[in-house]
Amino acid sequence: MLDYRPNKSDIENAYERISPYVHNTPIHSSTLLNTRFSTNIFFKCENFQKAGSFKSRGAVNAILSLPKKYSTIGVATHSSGNFAQALARAASILNIPSYIVMPENAPKVKIDAVRDYGGEITFCKPTLSAREETIKKVISSTGAFEIHPYDNYDIIAGQGTATLELCQSIQNLDIILCPVGGGGLISGTALAASFFGNNIKVIACEPKGADDAYRSMKAGKIIPSIDPNTIADGLLTSLGTRNFPIIQKYVDDIVTVGEDTIVEAMRLIYERMKIVIEPSSAVPLAALIEDRVDVRNKNVGIIISGGNVDLSKISF
Amino acid sequence: MLDYRPNKSDIENAYERISPYVHNTPIHSSTLLNTRFSTNIFFKCENFQKAGSFKSRGAVNAILSLPKKYSTIGVATHSSGNFAQALARAASILNIPSYIVMPENAPKVKIDAVRDYGGEITFCKPTLSAREETIKKVISSTGAFEIHPYDNYDIIAGQGTATLELCQSIQNLDIILCPVGGGGLISGTALAASFFGNNIKVIACEPKGADDAYRSMKAGKIIPSIDPNTIADGLLTSLGTRNFPIIQKYVDDIVTVGEDTIVEAMRLIYERMKIVIEPSSAVPLAALIEDRVDVRNKNVGIIISGGNVDLSKISF
Repeated sequence: MLDYRPNKSDIENAYERISPYVHNTPIHSSTLLNTRFSTNIFFKCENFQKAGSFKSRGAVNAILSLPKKYSTIGVATHSSGNFAQALARAASILNIPSYIVMPENAPKVKIDAVRDYGGEITFCKPTLSAREETIKKVISSTGAFEIHPYDNYDIIAGQGTATLELCQSIQNLDIILCPVGGGGLISGTALAASFFGNNIKVIACEPKGADDAYRSMKAGKIIPSIDPNTIADGLLTSLGTRNFPIIQKYVDDIVTVGEDTIVEAMRLIYERMKIVIEPSSAVPLAALIEDRVDVRNKNVGIIISGGNVDLSKISF
Repeated sequence: MLDYRPNKSDIENAYERISPYVHNTPIHSSTLLNTRFSTNIFFKCENFQKAGSFKSRGAVNAILSLPKKYSTIGVATHSSGNFAQALARAASILNIPSYIVMPENAPKVKIDAVRDYGGEITFCKPTLSAREETIKKVISSTGAFEIHPYDNYDIIAGQGTATLELCQSIQNLDIILCPVGGGGLISGTALAASFFGNNIKVIACEPKGADDAYRSMKAGKIIPSIDPNTIADGLLTSLGTRNFPIIQKYVDDIVTVGEDTIVEAMRLIYERMKIVIEPSSAVPLAALIEDRVDVRNKNVGIIISGGNVDLSKISF
């Protein structure tokens, strides 16, 4: 199974399928940042995506690819964050029931958003084992189809559509920088860059405090995070089994960055680009600040993954 | 003199003149906000404008309309905020010296921005009389041409180009909401709405803590603010003599809003629209929250005036 991966048509078909339900997000740039880094950066703004992040792309693709019998039975997932909202919204579009397992300490704003989209929430203790146990129970009682937030080929193909759009708009990209958490976004990005770009180098960017992807790449096998700790709360998860082989084959490099630099990058983006992003989205710019990637005189794409942030917890 | 006002051609010519040097800013919308207010809002995002606010429009227009002999002598203004940056930038484009009088307590980030654009700063005590005295001295020693931040017809025509663009993109607007401080933006907006729209109602929105425009309209004469106090620091100034007659004739209504609602509106825009705005820009949405304007089932334009905010002073 793990030799399989979405091909060019899978991503093109995902794009056709999801386009009526998601935004072709704008691409922003900043003269000041380009001058500072002697480069030409194109920010693909998935913070303006439906439900506030790129996760809507994969979620809509998975829902529209669902085996027919589940359209009345429903879908299930476990997520504390953006995927919970994205899946509940995607399911609601087609009137499909959604069952979302969330940790009991999830932020109220995210719980409210899932409920607003009609998702039925089951709470669990905030541990991976409690999550997995709870989702099993939910599936056995509802018969719902489980859609994993990233370890799923429909999700990976859907996430790749952001880069398909980026390559359509900017035809001579040299590099794409993208944050890595569970690996859904980076694996879709790397595949799409190889299909729709012209020799684009893809670089995954990861917080030092949650560097399982970095360590996994070095070791040649998945090494899960133990007690990851970073402000970039979207990147706490460990790599998925379907994502890792794609990353090994299609991602050119992984770089890690410190927490202070992530906050500095986030502030730069708020102050200079006037957009609200979540901390995870600042990780690629942090890699430029720490000079981890040579971007001089290059055309650089950066995927701004999302804008769902608890503002009361951010202080600059 | 005060019967004069910019006409349709003045604003069209300003638009032609400044277009190479400023952005035609994007128009954003939010399904959630439209649902909440049973309306259809188009946010004209001047926070993405050059130098971070609509002030670049007027500043560039004034610089490009400058009597020729001043192109080597230079221009002067007094401003603690967005106009200082906008004028310094506009002058730098044409290599014209700029002399900026700023209060000594101006935020460092704004002082740095003016210097980065090559503006020569003279500091003064933070009072209106100190400002006026200092600018007189600067002008007498440099011979520079004074460009007032809002009480100036080239500035008013320039600010009107945001609404020209808005009317070009959205052809059936019923209402435009716009913050009012010194009156440069609202007077340009109201003129442009009358020239380029189809019977658009223009409503000025003002903080209760700085309601000189509201009181001036009621009194039929300019009543300056005394000790205005609001988080919307761009709206502390009192109406200009050239702005007031235009507002009297072309603005349909003025509404005022409370401080808590301004903060609530600002948070809504950050959280739901994922854009960084300055507090002044939240005042029109605050008017909707306080139900001061009937916008149900209407097409509503809101001018987001700028995004220059000291993030360390914002807490949600």
